[in-house]
Amino acid sequence: MKVSLGAKTLAQPTPVWVIGSYDAKGKPNVMTAAWGGICCSQPPCVAVSLREERYSYPGIVQHRAFTVSIPSKAYAAQADYFGIVSGKDVDKFKVTGLTPVGSTVVDAPYVAEFPLVLECVLVQTVTLGIHIQLVGEILDVKADADVLDDKGYPDAAKVQPLIFTPINKSYHSIGDQVGMAFSMGLTFRDGPGKKHP
Amino acid sequence: MKVSLGAKTLAQPTPVWVIGSYDAKGKPNVMTAAWGGICCSQPPCVAVSLREERYSYPGIVQHRAFTVSIPSKAYAAQADYFGIVSGKDVDKFKVTGLTPVGSTVVDAPYVAEFPLVLECVLVQTVTLGIHIQLVGEILDVKADADVLDDKGYPDAAKVQPLIFTPINKSYHSIGDQVGMAFSMGLTFRDGPGKKHP
Repeated sequence: MKVSLGAKTLAQPTPVWVIGSYDAKGKPNVMTAAWGGICCSQPPCVAVSLREERYSYPGIVQHRAFTVSIPSKAYAAQADYFGIVSGKDVDKFKVTGLTPVGSTVVDAPYVAEFPLVLECVLVQTVTLGIHIQLVGEILDVKADADVLDDKGYPDAAKVQPLIFTPINKSYHSIGDQVGMAFSMGLTFRDGPGKKHP
Repeated sequence: MKVSLGAKTLAQPTPVWVIGSYDAKGKPNVMTAAWGGICCSQPPCVAVSLREERYSYPGIVQHRAFTVSIPSKAYAAQADYFGIVSGKDVDKFKVTGLTPVGSTVVDAPYVAEFPLVLECVLVQTVTLGIHIQLVGEILDVKADADVLDDKGYPDAAKVQPLIFTPINKSYHSIGDQVGMAFSMGLTFRDGPGKKHP
């Protein structure tokens, strides 16, 4: 028997993503978003939701671009700060000492110190309520070499992305590997006797 | 200097969410999705992306409803299985021994054994490419009492949601708490001397 908690955004996990953009004058800015996710495999697209009144919003629409810089847990305080203050009032890069890098693929900056970055062109905006969803087509992904696994893809245990828990506002790190997808479940399809790679 | 990995869906973290729906004949079905996220605070909405050819798709559109059942890591193999086979061919509840519960709020079933459930009416579909995004307004959230914190909200350490890593297809558990949001970053705003609750 489950307890009813009402109509609330109580999903888990949600990401901690730092959205990079230029403002009207070309100043690099970042803000933190937890409302977002991959939304299409082909073309590869990611969605992030912003309130229209956010300082980042007009810049993303004007430049038709944003980046998603994924902080490792070592940068949790910086990522949190990026969600507390507005780029209207402060230069968030200067205050934190982090480094803006201009993407050469899209018209937006990313955070040099964060290990994994998606570079996106804005392809669609979807008005949903107090948030507007920005759909970005991922034109390139950039990663620090030391977070890649032996196949050359980002290893979550090395990226150490943060996980946000809505409403109780907690950040968690990523834990142990539980298993492999499209593999653990084969026991239900094939029976427990079968060996799976 | 970062390595370029190309135009790929290499975001972290992505969720492991089990989408519940009825088919045309009212049979409960589930499928696993990692492309999704919260997309609006008010009204509270969640987005999940499906391919149109998925067995679940027409049922969700017909019944204008779906649920998101969030498996704890103890159910990783079942959740993985739900993403491997099609409800066209098998009854995934029967095979895994898990229990479908008909929502009394929306016209869709959820998984009794999973600790956290969002009950959603379909409010918008957004065509993006090979995936169609289904936006659901969350009408209620239901949780097992034993995963709630002392304020009555789901504690990630108790829910134990899974995290999926795209492309290298790894499942991870949630790790330790890193800190509190809208709090850790105040040191950059106020200076390190200030005490924060």
